[in-house]
Amino acid sequence: MNVDAVDFFYLSMPDVTVDVDGSQDALLVRVSAGGQTGWGECEAAPLPSIAAFVCPMSHGACRPVSASVLGQKLETPEDIRRIAAMVAYDSMDLLQAQHTFSGVEMALWDALGRKLDEPVWSLLGYDRSEAKIPYASLLFGDTPQETLERAKNALSEGFSAFKFGWGPIGRRSVSDDADQFAAAREGIGTYGHLMVDAGQIFGDDVGAASARLQALETERTLWIEEPFQAGALEAYASLARQGSSVCTAGGEAAHNVNMAEHLMTYGKVGYIQIDCGRIGGIGPAKTVAASAAAQGVTYVNHTFTSHLALSASLQPFAGLYDHNICEFPAQPSRLAIDLTANYLHRDSNGLVKAPETPGLGIDIDLPSLAPYLVDTEITVNGKVLYRTPTLE
Amino acid sequence: MNVDAVDFFYLSMPDVTVDVDGSQDALLVRVSAGGQTGWGECEAAPLPSIAAFVCPMSHGACRPVSASVLGQKLETPEDIRRIAAMVAYDSMDLLQAQHTFSGVEMALWDALGRKLDEPVWSLLGYDRSEAKIPYASLLFGDTPQETLERAKNALSEGFSAFKFGWGPIGRRSVSDDADQFAAAREGIGTYGHLMVDAGQIFGDDVGAASARLQALETERTLWIEEPFQAGALEAYASLARQGSSVCTAGGEAAHNVNMAEHLMTYGKVGYIQIDCGRIGGIGPAKTVAASAAAQGVTYVNHTFTSHLALSASLQPFAGLYDHNICEFPAQPSRLAIDLTANYLHRDSNGLVKAPETPGLGIDIDLPSLAPYLVDTEITVNGKVLYRTPTLE
Repeated sequence: MNVDAVDFFYLSMPDVTVDVDGSQDALLVRVSAGGQTGWGECEAAPLPSIAAFVCPMSHGACRPVSASVLGQKLETPEDIRRIAAMVAYDSMDLLQAQHTFSGVEMALWDALGRKLDEPVWSLLGYDRSEAKIPYASLLFGDTPQETLERAKNALSEGFSAFKFGWGPIGRRSVSDDADQFAAAREGIGTYGHLMVDAGQIFGDDVGAASARLQALETERTLWIEEPFQAGALEAYASLARQGSSVCTAGGEAAHNVNMAEHLMTYGKVGYIQIDCGRIGGIGPAKTVAASAAAQGVTYVNHTFTSHLALSASLQPFAGLYDHNICEFPAQPSRLAIDLTANYLHRDSNGLVKAPETPGLGIDIDLPSLAPYLVDTEITVNGKVLYRTPTLE
Repeated sequence: MNVDAVDFFYLSMPDVTVDVDGSQDALLVRVSAGGQTGWGECEAAPLPSIAAFVCPMSHGACRPVSASVLGQKLETPEDIRRIAAMVAYDSMDLLQAQHTFSGVEMALWDALGRKLDEPVWSLLGYDRSEAKIPYASLLFGDTPQETLERAKNALSEGFSAFKFGWGPIGRRSVSDDADQFAAAREGIGTYGHLMVDAGQIFGDDVGAASARLQALETERTLWIEEPFQAGALEAYASLARQGSSVCTAGGEAAHNVNMAEHLMTYGKVGYIQIDCGRIGGIGPAKTVAASAAAQGVTYVNHTFTSHLALSASLQPFAGLYDHNICEFPAQPSRLAIDLTANYLHRDSNGLVKAPETPGLGIDIDLPSLAPYLVDTEITVNGKVLYRTPTLE
């Protein structure tokens, strides 16, 4: 079969706030190939991502993503890798291309898996899909009291691992941050895994990050995530060299395999966190997972949106038994919930795994998304390059 | 003064080919602030770059570039750095943001320089603008004979340094490539500086790149540029370790300071090549130039478009006497020529330098650009987010 069409659906909550909640909008991608349908989701700004697919060519190394996708043969995993290589080379000067292609690539795997009647993790070469401990991914409250409440809520929902991020961390005093960490630990109880996401707040200031290590150790924090801007490898390495029991984690901003490799090789992270909706999809994420496993770094998915994104993000490390913790969107927006028709439920032990069903195993009920659809049109020299497709 | 408006003009040649000639289209940026006008140019795909300025916010760390620019105070260089930091943080999840902001940032410097009646290099802290040896930047012909002709033409135009890039290099045999290098050397004569741009053709295949070193040495090539994909730092370092007289060069794809630093620190490039239209503008390029100078790496601009981009790209290393070679677009498209109303002419010694006039010293005659204007409109939920401005 060949790729006959790629459709983008820009969806949004009615009100988008400055909360760092990436589930407030979504860019859903549908690939149609030989009668098969596949679904994917870009974890990216919808409008620039659509533009990167439909824009006119600027020159030979700045072609739209569509040029490498439409009409291509899609019969084997190797076809997807070939398409990905074309995007990487022919769109090398189009920065947004990797974010756009990430959702397309997921949809290619989904369509191929459905066609071949195999789950994507099987197409990737894994024998089985291992169960993972889902961690509830939450934002810090504005006060320790709010954080405590959120922690208790998540605990009551049966989670045994919890990550708190962003909010006031790094913006107030070391002592204020310590109070937040303590509130999180108090709320989740003695036995839960606790992780903290600093949201790049320290820039490249190793001292400011180090000053929080003591309190993080006291609350037995597994990792501190993105203490620094994504490319501040020396700062990452410097923090890691302090030998704290708190590991460093990062990688969600990686928009290619190299960036993830650099964080492991030069930045010395203990956990590499990959968002399939940004790194170029499932294939490059699998490459990173294999590399992490080989060098003793733990692979973790980065997922803050829908269960379509969650299924995609579980595939690259589905078969890696030792990499057994996974991010699980615990407070998604209504949009992220309504985006899929089925879900990855936690089992009786509270664990989740990539589904056994063909492709990504997630269904979309397009007509139900009408309330979220953002009507969009892009016209260049009188020609409509993009218009929101109908929900059918 | 405050930033009152930012206007984008998408310009294009009537026919865009797959030649890797980045001057086939352009994204011109005009900043209006307190009655002053400043000009800049993104070296980027126009449509996605415009979208990254005007798109709706996705969440707090994925805001449009406009959110960090419009209405901001613009009185000192520090204001520009402050705005850049806001873009980097508040648009961290919007991949295209840095390409968009690059042109805006240039225009901010231009407006500020005009307001303060100082050239930008002076605002950057340099005492003077040093003359540079411009190298003619050319594409390889499809045959050695074509390359020979192009080399002779450039020599006859008075250049003493020449770079040939892309074309068939790396796509045919080692011996074919050697013939191309020899043709270039023959055409430019014994004394000219010769550089070769491989356009990332070897991916991360060190062996394939190494196989060309002998021929490059024979033709006394100063550098081999982008032998590998931008992030293949280990491959870069591996080639550098071979101790050839041919240095490695790279950096044009850097879309932040960290990426350029990594190429120097880990990739061991001898020349770091920065495109102000991609790295976030003139400020971050200046940071890279200072870092390069401190660690014995030579800074070179990357410029393949207009003399507006050329002036912007000369500012970050204008005062560095030892970094005395600069890329000079030798075969720009008609659009790139017509884009500016004045030019950086080579002096009687064949040298160029950043102008002594205020700002970037380059004027734009907007009405003359009418033949190139690409009429564009972006509508979201019934609201026009972007419409091509009138040329006035």
